[in-house]
Amino acid sequence: MNLFDDVPSDLPSELVDVLAEGQSVRIERIVSTGHKTEPGTWYDQEQTEWVVVLRGEAKLSFDDGEITTMKTGDHILIPAHRRHRVEWTTPNEPTLWLAVFFD
Amino acid sequence: MNLFDDVPSDLPSELVDVLAEGQSVRIERIVSTGHKTEPGTWYDQEQTEWVVVLRGEAKLSFDDGEITTMKTGDHILIPAHRRHRVEWTTPNEPTLWLAVFFD
Repeated sequence: MNLFDDVPSDLPSELVDVLAEGQSVRIERIVSTGHKTEPGTWYDQEQTEWVVVLRGEAKLSFDDGEITTMKTGDHILIPAHRRHRVEWTTPNEPTLWLAVFFD
Repeated sequence: MNLFDDVPSDLPSELVDVLAEGQSVRIERIVSTGHKTEPGTWYDQEQTEWVVVLRGEAKLSFDDGEITTMKTGDHILIPAHRRHRVEWTTPNEPTLWLAVFFD
């Protein structure tokens, strides 16, 4: 199985594939094609998320005002309940994320 | 922080960086420059390992005789205690792995 296979170039919404799961861990591949979090909404997650951009670019924002631009290879650790949203992903190519959620 | 930064092209032994850690999970970046597991030895791990090759190529073997060639993007799930070894990594460029160990 290859992370870069079957990456659609146009999607009605984000595509999430669970690659592996354990007791309290989930590894996901996420494909965005220009998607962003709906205005006024935030992700507020029960688990810590470690996430890396493996293709494309994205911009995340946090409810304390921090904004982070992520390019290919950039990774970030988002503690549980740190509210965040995706402000932007590259519109003309898919952005591919690998995310690990854990306690 | 970027996964592809600070990748040495020559190393006396594998380089392991722990990128994140949780209750029963560890995320590592591993850089190999032609390294392989010492002859006659196997990895026999307490935890499940999900691993992807993000640069370079590698060949893994398992003690049931299976051999798996991994190129960039290929990922594999290695159950706890499934004995395996690295037979080969590309000698002329670094092989970069991302590994997640979990219960």
